Amino acid sequence: MTNPAEIRLLSVGTALPGPPIDNVALGRHFRMDALWQQWIDAFIGTRQRHLAVDLDTGEQRATLAALGVEAARKALAASGTDPRDIDLVVLGTATPDALMPATVNVIADELGIDGITTYQLQSGCSGAVQALDLARQLLSTGRHRTALVIGGDVIVKHYVLDADLRKVPPAELVNFVLFGDGAGAAVLSADPEAGDTAFRSAFVQLVGKGRPPGQVLEWFGPARPPGPDIAAHEDYKAIEESVPVLAEEILREILDGLDWKQDDLDYLLPPQLSVRMTDKITRRLGVTGAREINCVGETGNNGNALVFFQLDQVLNRLVPGDRLVGIAVESSKWIKSGFALEKL
Amino acid sequence: MTNPAEIRLLSVGTALPGPPIDNVALGRHFRMDALWQQWIDAFIGTRQRHLAVDLDTGEQRATLAALGVEAARKALAASGTDPRDIDLVVLGTATPDALMPATVNVIADELGIDGITTYQLQSGCSGAVQALDLARQLLSTGRHRTALVIGGDVIVKHYVLDADLRKVPPAELVNFVLFGDGAGAAVLSADPEAGDTAFRSAFVQLVGKGRPPGQVLEWFGPARPPGPDIAAHEDYKAIEESVPVLAEEILREILDGLDWKQDDLDYLLPPQLSVRMTDKITRRLGVTGAREINCVGETGNNGNALVFFQLDQVLNRLVPGDRLVGIAVESSKWIKSGFALEKL
Repeated sequence: MTNPAEIRLLSVGTALPGPPIDNVALGRHFRMDALWQQWIDAFIGTRQRHLAVDLDTGEQRATLAALGVEAARKALAASGTDPRDIDLVVLGTATPDALMPATVNVIADELGIDGITTYQLQSGCSGAVQALDLARQLLSTGRHRTALVIGGDVIVKHYVLDADLRKVPPAELVNFVLFGDGAGAAVLSADPEAGDTAFRSAFVQLVGKGRPPGQVLEWFGPARPPGPDIAAHEDYKAIEESVPVLAEEILREILDGLDWKQDDLDYLLPPQLSVRMTDKITRRLGVTGAREINCVGETGNNGNALVFFQLDQVLNRLVPGDRLVGIAVESSKWIKSGFALEKL
Repeated sequence: MTNPAEIRLLSVGTALPGPPIDNVALGRHFRMDALWQQWIDAFIGTRQRHLAVDLDTGEQRATLAALGVEAARKALAASGTDPRDIDLVVLGTATPDALMPATVNVIADELGIDGITTYQLQSGCSGAVQALDLARQLLSTGRHRTALVIGGDVIVKHYVLDADLRKVPPAELVNFVLFGDGAGAAVLSADPEAGDTAFRSAFVQLVGKGRPPGQVLEWFGPARPPGPDIAAHEDYKAIEESVPVLAEEILREILDGLDWKQDDLDYLLPPQLSVRMTDKITRRLGVTGAREINCVGETGNNGNALVFFQLDQVLNRLVPGDRLVGIAVESSKWIKSGFALEKL
């Protein structure tokens, strides 16, 4: 048994499909005008995203498994971890490549990882924290020693390339500019000697009782073909109202749990729904003195991958004594999640 | 921290949609003849199944969430557990109602469970054991005290009611008779005083390295509509060859891990792919003296629910000293799983 607060985060890796697609390129594909680009700037703020589909040809150029393998290879290389030393793999995603086999097992096979335990979580924007926290808990039991944790999403099956955006209502239009594809990975160790970034705390808490989902994403089978306009719904009014409040609660709960003060924080990783939403959240959090780490402006909202992209920017910049808090809110059925790291 | 071998299984509940559909009724709907029924008897052996869709009207009469809630309520009632005492919910399924929100959170909301941690595993026939084992590990850390574990599948989106079965090749025909819908649930406790059935061991192990999946189940979005004949594939030759061998390995590993002898077993819960496959497996296992607990002949193969239906038959029949081993093999990407219970 290892104290969960002594679990180490050894390394992080990330992967994005294809070249970045900026708002001009996106507007050109969907034949939208300059006004539309101003609308994106004002209400979303995302400058570019990466998509696993070629906008021109419609060809899918990456799967979640392929992105997960690429991110995992980078994370394993960064910490010098041999894939054969991995004895636990956890993947969080809302968009697995198939219902079966679980994508986590396709990734494990590709990496040469076998004879071990794997879990794939069906999760949204809190999925990276869910997966990291789950690995951390399982490592603390002593049954596992070294975990590979992956998070990612590929929205190709929901990205209608020939949609007429002029006929799509704003509440759904946002799906075409908000999201992106990508994957991230991290290596965690139960051996305190293995690294110097301690995973001090993590928590995931469902708070959806009696509240309608803020985000719905459907899937279809051959017997139930897709109907029009029913595949993805967001309740942005509910999201705008609730997410900043929940983010504030998460920050307070993490700090209180560790007996840290807000001024102790060196880095803050806020929720990455969109650039504009992140701005609203951080204004409310009012953490001064901590450097804010964002990625959504460049990656788009790639769901379960976001936290890994934030960590990838900051992990190697930490100096001894640095303290970091990450926050993620899932609006699907309302989940609060967060974590804290400390560089020793 | 509680020793995982001291975690208690308190109760089990199960739920099935609609009335049983026997092979005559199924044959009538798809206009198949008596020969087809003989084929089912000879190669599958399943006598009936329950479906969440009305064969005549095509109306969906149950969701996974509804079945999960029903099974959970029965399990909670059977152990007299207040939903407010549940501090961990784990659901295993291959067929969630939607990609988001996770079905586990819809179920929790319906049960009045909130402010706690939930996980939804994307899993196939090993999913019940994955979910039970995960809950058991997390309970052992001391962070959680009482877990609700659920497993279930609803194949309505893949069940093509107007298929012309005379044109469907045998390898796919089997999908129409093999599977069924259903859900099961169990309550586990970290408090050894809370019950007298100890969850002695459980393990889940990926063994898919370099092997093509034995089972594939696709999903579609609005941008990638279903093509013909590509939604569900089974490699029955690989399954027939591998599953009995893997089942034998699982049994040996569980018995060796606990230092139990084969003769010590009072009950054996073998894999439930189909009646004929279960027969092949138990013949190979050669466990004499233990009573065999099967359900697939009456429930159909309802995936993540099967183990709960087996447990539901036997849990209240156990007498002090009884030992039980359950075995499940997932052929999607080849996962070995099993568990052992002991009545104190």
